[in-house]
Amino acid sequence: MEPITGKALILACSAIGAGLAMIAGIGPGIGQGFAAGKGAESVGRQPEAQGDIVRTMLLGCAVAESTGIYGLVIALILLFANPLVRLL
Amino acid sequence: MEPITGKALILACSAIGAGLAMIAGIGPGIGQGFAAGKGAESVGRQPEAQGDIVRTMLLGCAVAESTGIYGLVIALILLFANPLVRLL
Amino acid sequence: MEPITGKALILACSAIGAGLAMIAGIGPGIGQGFAAGKGAESVGRQPEAQGDIVRTMLLGCAVAESTGIYGLVIALILLFANPLVRLL
Amino acid sequence: MEPITGKALILACSAIGAGLAMIAGIGPGIGQGFAAGKGAESVGRQPEAQGDIVRTMLLGCAVAESTGIYGLVIALILLFANPLVRLL
Amino acid sequence: MEPITGKALILACSAIGAGLAMIAGIGPGIGQGFAAGKGAESVGRQPEAQGDIVRTMLLGCAVAESTGIYGLVIALILLFANPLVRLL
Amino acid sequence: MEPITGKALILACSAIGAGLAMIAGIGPGIGQGFAAGKGAESVGRQPEAQGDIVRTMLLGCAVAESTGIYGLVIALILLFANPLVRLL
Amino acid sequence: MEPITGKALILACSAIGAGLAMIAGIGPGIGQGFAAGKGAESVGRQPEAQGDIVRTMLLGCAVAESTGIYGLVIALILLFANPLVRLL
Amino acid sequence: MEPITGKALILACSAIGAGLAMIAGIGPGIGQGFAAGKGAESVGRQPEAQGDIVRTMLLGCAVAESTGIYGLVIALILLFANPLVRLL
Amino acid sequence: MEPITGKALILACSAIGAGLAMIAGIGPGIGQGFAAGKGAESVGRQPEAQGDIVRTMLLGCAVAESTGIYGLVIALILLFANPLVRLL
Amino acid sequence: MEPITGKALILACSAIGAGLAMIAGIGPGIGQGFAAGKGAESVGRQPEAQGDIVRTMLLGCAVAESTGIYGLVIALILLFANPLVRLL
Amino acid sequence: MEPITGKALILACSAIGAGLAMIAGIGPGIGQGFAAGKGAESVGRQPEAQGDIVRTMLLGCAVAESTGIYGLVIALILLFANPLVRLL
Amino acid sequence: MEPITGKALILACSAIGAGLAMIAGIGPGIGQGFAAGKGAESVGRQPEAQGDIVRTMLLGCAVAESTGIYGLVIALILLFANPLVRLL
Amino acid sequence: MEPITGKALILACSAIGAGLAMIAGIGPGIGQGFAAGKGAESVGRQPEAQGDIVRTMLLGCAVAESTGIYGLVIALILLFANPLVRLL
Amino acid sequence: MEPITGKALILACSAIGAGLAMIAGIGPGIGQGFAAGKGAESVGRQPEAQGDIVRTMLLGCAVAESTGIYGLVIALILLFANPLVRLL
Repeated sequence: MEPITGKALILACSAIGAGLAMIAGIGPGIGQGFAAGKGAESVGRQPEAQGDIVRTMLLGCAVAESTGIYGLVIALILLFANPLVRLL
Repeated sequence: MEPITGKALILACSAIGAGLAMIAGIGPGIGQGFAAGKGAESVGRQPEAQGDIVRTMLLGCAVAESTGIYGLVIALILLFANPLVRLL
Repeated sequence: MEPITGKALILACSAIGAGLAMIAGIGPGIGQGFAAGKGAESVGRQPEAQGDIVRTMLLGCAVAESTGIYGLVIALILLFANPLVRLL
Repeated sequence: MEPITGKALILACSAIGAGLAMIAGIGPGIGQGFAAGKGAESVGRQPEAQGDIVRTMLLGCAVAESTGIYGLVIALILLFANPLVRLL
Repeated sequence: MEPITGKALILACSAIGAGLAMIAGIGPGIGQGFAAGKGAESVGRQPEAQGDIVRTMLLGCAVAESTGIYGLVIALILLFANPLVRLL
Repeated sequence: MEPITGKALILACSAIGAGLAMIAGIGPGIGQGFAAGKGAESVGRQPEAQGDIVRTMLLGCAVAESTGIYGLVIALILLFANPLVRLL
Repeated sequence: MEPITGKALILACSAIGAGLAMIAGIGPGIGQGFAAGKGAESVGRQPEAQGDIVRTMLLGCAVAESTGIYGLVIALILLFANPLVRLL
Repeated sequence: MEPITGKALILACSAIGAGLAMIAGIGPGIGQGFAAGKGAESVGRQPEAQGDIVRTMLLGCAVAESTGIYGLVIALILLFANPLVRLL
Repeated sequence: MEPITGKALILACSAIGAGLAMIAGIGPGIGQGFAAGKGAESVGRQPEAQGDIVRTMLLGCAVAESTGIYGLVIALILLFANPLVRLL
Repeated sequence: MEPITGKALILACSAIGAGLAMIAGIGPGIGQGFAAGKGAESVGRQPEAQGDIVRTMLLGCAVAESTGIYGLVIALILLFANPLVRLL
Repeated sequence: MEPITGKALILACSAIGAGLAMIAGIGPGIGQGFAAGKGAESVGRQPEAQGDIVRTMLLGCAVAESTGIYGLVIALILLFANPLVRLL
Repeated sequence: MEPITGKALILACSAIGAGLAMIAGIGPGIGQGFAAGKGAESVGRQPEAQGDIVRTMLLGCAVAESTGIYGLVIALILLFANPLVRLL
Repeated sequence: MEPITGKALILACSAIGAGLAMIAGIGPGIGQGFAAGKGAESVGRQPEAQGDIVRTMLLGCAVAESTGIYGLVIALILLFANPLVRLL
Repeated sequence: MEPITGKALILACSAIGAGLAMIAGIGPGIGQGFAAGKGAESVGRQPEAQGDIVRTMLLGCAVAESTGIYGLVIALILLFANPLVRLL
């Protein structure tokens, strides 16, 4: 095994890249927490509308979740199906 | 295989670039979560307008989603259809 | 193939540059999400003005989208039509 | 054992990447804490709706938790099932 | 071709510079999204003034767009009409 | 013992990675403190609902705690059960 | 052509400097977007004063634009009339 | 003693890592201070509920303290029971 | 021409310094945009005081502009009248 | 004495780590100052409850102080009882 | 002329330092813009007190300007009266 | 004297570490200023409670001061009683 | 003249340090601008108390100015009375 | 004189450290400016309590000043009484 091959450099950078991609999770975390707080507040004020409030909140959160999932997808691809080393 | 070829450097930087591109997801995550919270609050106040509120919220979120998708697209291109190595 | 040619350095930096360009997406994501939340809130208050509210919201979001699209365009140019390597 | 092999570089970068991935936890931490505060406030105002408020808050927090879990998953994969070294 | 010529360094730095220039898009994205939200809110309150509100909003957004366009222009110049390599 | 072996590099980066993972604690710290403040405020206003408020606050904080614990877990794994050196 | 001449270094740093200068655009983008939102809101409240509001908004935005233009000017000078290479 | 052994590198990075881990203390510091301020305000408004308010505040602060303690634990482990050098 | 002379290093750093100096423009951009928004709002409320409001706004903006101009001046000096190379 | 021994590297990094650990003090500083302001405000409104307010504020501040003390402890350990050099 | 003399390094770092010093302009820019907005708002409410408001605003802005001027002074000294090279 | 000894590296890093430790002063500065503003406001509203308000404010500020003093202590130790060089 | 002497390194770092010291000016700039805005607002509301308001504002600004002046003093010392080179 | 001695490295790092220490001035600058604004506002509302308000404001500012002074003290020590070079 040579000291550091090009393949190793790609894989090492993939590990860093996967970590960077997860940082995107800061956004959905803050946003969905805001939604959860507003939802709980609204349910407290109009308990009779609970079903509608929760459904709306979850629908919005599902959309907000997407960018976090994108980051996860890219990280998983970098780790398990790393297409970069095949291009070498 | 030579220690580190130019191709390997491009692919290693592509992994970093893909990770950086995903950081854009912080924005839509915060924004859509705000929309989800405001939507749930509004549904709680006017349950009879739920359909309109949710449709408006989702429409706005779909637009906000776009920049997160752009980042995903660029990351996927960097990983799977890396056009840079073909230019070498 | 030499260890690292100038062409390879340009292409490697293009991958980093494409990733940096996508970070601009944080802005439209936060802004459009704010617009979506305000729009949903307004629709809830004046359901009869829904059409006008949504049209205004989408118009504003379309403009806000632009800088995200600029970033995408620059990233796509860096990846697919990289004019820099042709200048070498 | 050679001074620094490519494998070692990948594993070292995996440790850094795992640490970076955990930083995503800042988001859910702030968001869920906001939800907890709003939930407690709402329960104080409408104790009779406690069950609904808590259920809504926890539902929203469970979604907000997701991006934190994604980061954990990526970190655990980097540490225990590191698929990158197998690609070398 | 020599390992790394001065021309290649300029072009590589141009790719990084183009990416940095696009980060300016965070500003207009947040600002115009704020304008879109305020505009939608106002239209909901005074539907009869919709034309005036939208025209004012778009006028303001057009101005706010400018710095994003400046970044795009500089990035495009760096990529397609790179005047720096001609100075070498 | 050679100057710096690959194993040593992994372990050194693990120490840095453990430190980075703990930074996630900023989020739960801010969020739970917000919850504590809101909880104390609510208890002051409705002392008769203290039990419910505190239970809700603690439930929400327990969830918010999770990402901080994830960081701790990853750091402890990096330190005590470092699986990376076994992969070398 | 020598590997990297002083001239090439200056021109490479000029590309980075032009990119940095454009980051100033974040400020006017946020500020003018705020102005656009406030302007649209005001027009909605006092449609009869639209002309005055818009004129005031545009006047303020024109001033706010200036620092973005300064950044553009410096970037254009760095690219097209680079006075630094003539000093070499 | 050789110039820099692998063991020394691990221990040097442990010192940096311990410092990074303490930065997590920014979060609990801000959060608990917010709780203290809200608690004092509430006690001032309802002195008769002082016991309940203080108990709630302290309970919430104890939870918020946790991530700061996690950082301390990791730092102490890195310093006194450094398990990384034993893995070498 | 030698590879990299001291003169070239100074001029290269001047290009970076000019870019850094322009970043100061973020401040006036945000501030003047705030002033423009407040001015437009005030004109909408008291159209009869428009002249006074605009004059006050512009006076304040002119002062706020100053630090942006300082940055421009320093950048222009670095580019066109670079006094540093004459000191060599 | 050799140019730079491993021991020296550890001790140098300990100095940096001690400095990093003190940065945690930003959090308690902001938080306790908020508490002090809220406390003073409350005392002004209910001077008769001064004792309770101050006791509550100080209790909360004492908890908020903890993470700052943790940083101090780690820094003092790094400086005076540096256990890392003994592990070499 | 030698490749890079000490004098050249000082002058190159002076260019970077001058750029850093100008970044201080972000502060006065935001602050004075806030003052301009508040001033315009106040003039709109009490046009009869315009003289006093403007004089107060300008007085405050003149003080706020000072740190921006300090930065300019240091930058100008670094560029035109660079006292550091005379100490060599 | 050798070019750079280990002792010199420790002392050089101590200077950097002392500077980093002082950055903690940002926190108490913001917090105590907030307290001062709130205190002055309260004294204005209830001049008869001035003594109590000021005492409370100073008590809170004294606690907030602590983390700034910790930073000062660590910096002074690094400079005057540097225990690290004695460990070499 | 040797390539780079120790004296030159000190003087080069002094230029960087002087630039860093000026960044402190961001704080007073924001704070004093806030004070100027609040002062102008207060003068508009109570023109008869103008003298007292302005005197209070200036007094507070004079104190806030101090840290900006400290930075200026350190920068001037680094440039004109550089005591470090005399210690060499 | 040798190229770069250890003493020179310490003194160069002292210049950087002095610059870093001054950055702490951002905090008191923002905080005291807030206090000045609140003080001026309070004086405008209760001119008869001016003496008490100003005294309280100045007292609070004097405390807030302290961390800025700490930074100044450390910087002055690093420059004029640099105890580190004596330890060499």
